[in-house]
Amino acid sequence: MTTLLTLNAGSSSIKFSLFAAESLREEARGQVESIGGSAVLTLKAAQGKTETQVSAPDHGAAARAILAALMPLLEGRPVIGVGHRVVHGGAERSAPTLVTEAVLAELAALEPLAPLHQPYNLAGIRGAAQAFPDAAQVVCFDTAFHRAKPALQDVHALPQPYRDTLRRFGFHGLSYTHITEELARTAPDLHAGRVVVLHLGNGASACAIHNGQPVTTTMGFSALDGLCMGTRPGQIDPGAILYLIREEGLDAAQLEDLLYRKSGLLGLSGISNDMRALLEDGSAEAELAVDYFCSRIARETGALAAAMGGLDGVVFTGGIGENAPDIRARAMAGLGFLGLDVDGAANAAGAPDIGAGPARILVVPTDEERVIARATAELCRGD
Amino acid sequence: MTTLLTLNAGSSSIKFSLFAAESLREEARGQVESIGGSAVLTLKAAQGKTETQVSAPDHGAAARAILAALMPLLEGRPVIGVGHRVVHGGAERSAPTLVTEAVLAELAALEPLAPLHQPYNLAGIRGAAQAFPDAAQVVCFDTAFHRAKPALQDVHALPQPYRDTLRRFGFHGLSYTHITEELARTAPDLHAGRVVVLHLGNGASACAIHNGQPVTTTMGFSALDGLCMGTRPGQIDPGAILYLIREEGLDAAQLEDLLYRKSGLLGLSGISNDMRALLEDGSAEAELAVDYFCSRIARETGALAAAMGGLDGVVFTGGIGENAPDIRARAMAGLGFLGLDVDGAANAAGAPDIGAGPARILVVPTDEERVIARATAELCRGD
Repeated sequence: MTTLLTLNAGSSSIKFSLFAAESLREEARGQVESIGGSAVLTLKAAQGKTETQVSAPDHGAAARAILAALMPLLEGRPVIGVGHRVVHGGAERSAPTLVTEAVLAELAALEPLAPLHQPYNLAGIRGAAQAFPDAAQVVCFDTAFHRAKPALQDVHALPQPYRDTLRRFGFHGLSYTHITEELARTAPDLHAGRVVVLHLGNGASACAIHNGQPVTTTMGFSALDGLCMGTRPGQIDPGAILYLIREEGLDAAQLEDLLYRKSGLLGLSGISNDMRALLEDGSAEAELAVDYFCSRIARETGALAAAMGGLDGVVFTGGIGENAPDIRARAMAGLGFLGLDVDGAANAAGAPDIGAGPARILVVPTDEERVIARATAELCRGD
Repeated sequence: MTTLLTLNAGSSSIKFSLFAAESLREEARGQVESIGGSAVLTLKAAQGKTETQVSAPDHGAAARAILAALMPLLEGRPVIGVGHRVVHGGAERSAPTLVTEAVLAELAALEPLAPLHQPYNLAGIRGAAQAFPDAAQVVCFDTAFHRAKPALQDVHALPQPYRDTLRRFGFHGLSYTHITEELARTAPDLHAGRVVVLHLGNGASACAIHNGQPVTTTMGFSALDGLCMGTRPGQIDPGAILYLIREEGLDAAQLEDLLYRKSGLLGLSGISNDMRALLEDGSAEAELAVDYFCSRIARETGALAAAMGGLDGVVFTGGIGENAPDIRARAMAGLGFLGLDVDGAANAAGAPDIGAGPARILVVPTDEERVIARATAELCRGD
């Protein structure tokens, strides 16, 4: 009996899940927050939920704190692999990979492509390598799923050398992998058709998937493009950026702060980046933000259907996609012409199948940790 | 018997058309090119086409050269009005306007919103006011048509104060006005329905129009967004701009040069910004550019249909839209699911109605000068 760990490291947090390596049963999950500050470790397992103050001045210490917290659950079983969510695998990496020094160097070279995520992902790997020296370290990329899309969907209309650098990489690929596998298992007809998957969380993107293969996605080079998000604007006129530089005098750091942290639902509403808070608020400002969020989903669903030459169904996933029936209903309200019709009762009841028209509408919980755990198990076994 | 002139002034050129003020019959058209250099005036009229070297160190001199060239055609008839195409009317101007000093000052304050166009438009107005001191000066805005769209379609997901500044103004409005009027006259059923108008020239945009009213458009704050153009990229990830600043060290002027002059068809192909040249070239690079151009049209057609909740037809206009059957066929090829089906024979023959499916597909020549001339005549008469 052995175990596996999955880690998702951000700038000041690491989320983790513990799996039995053979059955891939998830035994516990939790996170360390406020790394570098007064860190707190939260652990949820069959025994209940605990919160503990821990010493975690850096990601290595946080990984050791996770090991210490899991020790009673391990009951002597070894952790044979640690699977890491890594945002960027660049233009080449299309599959999970065993970490070596060469791989780490390659991933570090990609940091400029995802400066707000990649460095922390790598800090998590280094921390876990210290805390779990006997475990294989495996990296799973949020870009990997999209590497199989047509070359035409990978570019912007830019000259070289920028065209090769500024690819439309696409993100949320671990979520799209899970959804695609779930569709193959539970809805094979739809899996064989043309699907728009709407991954709606604090980050959000949509992906066009035909017969299980990626066609195109709304997130492109960075995590800013496409759908409106909690604090990111989604699609925005590039001329607006030029104006902010020229006329408002914003520098790169200020632009990054504006576009990554102050825009989206928060920027539109001036109230919150949290969809639940906006739906409860109900003010005109909150409604503007929710309307914009939904209108962008509708518009991109139409665009992705056009990119596939048709549409057989839509899948909602992610925190908002799975839990906000109002958003599902409002986003689909004008898409009857695509065969999309929400069954109000099924939607309100949280049913997995909420379509009443010729095109299907499903709600499928995502599980990126499971995708990472399975890939890690396979690489540890040498599959 | 009186006459009207329309002017479209760019950085180093002024295009003009002469109309009979009562009948709005177009009697001549032409342009002054290389203003500030070795300027040449081209004039096309019933008598044929002439090219003349003229002295035009500035826009005022160019306007006087136009007057001199038109003198034989005027035969003593006065020019009672000069109508100007002005790219930007800001957030308020939704109709053609008689020029006063206050209006000129208002339009000059908008120069930062369209730094590559607005200053030259205004230079054209000042030049014409000198050359035609007795004529009413009228301004017609490329943004005006779009001012009637829903407020939700006018914003990006940005916080204040940027949200109010960085509106999705929309452009090519004089063309959309003409197409809408033509549809009302020649295809009233379609005019009453949901139409995507594809204005495809060296600049390109698409507009969703329902019952003659604007719903949304692909060009937003600037002339960069949306469809791929001759030298502009259309939609691009905002994070790509941040990368070019941070990692490639580009400043605002270099970004502007890249995005306004070196991207689009030219940037993708490395060959030309001219669609005719690319279609003749046929190399892999030329095909990439053409494929990208067409795929963006398809995608935005789907997006705009979603914004309207359906689609009754598409109208092609502009230099490429009117004259490139291959582009029309390739852009529509995957859109059968929207009811769009190109009649190959009618399309190749240059017929005005090329649809073979339930949704109509029309080709309608645009005529922005006529829209300006009519507005100018109405304001001169005090309609």
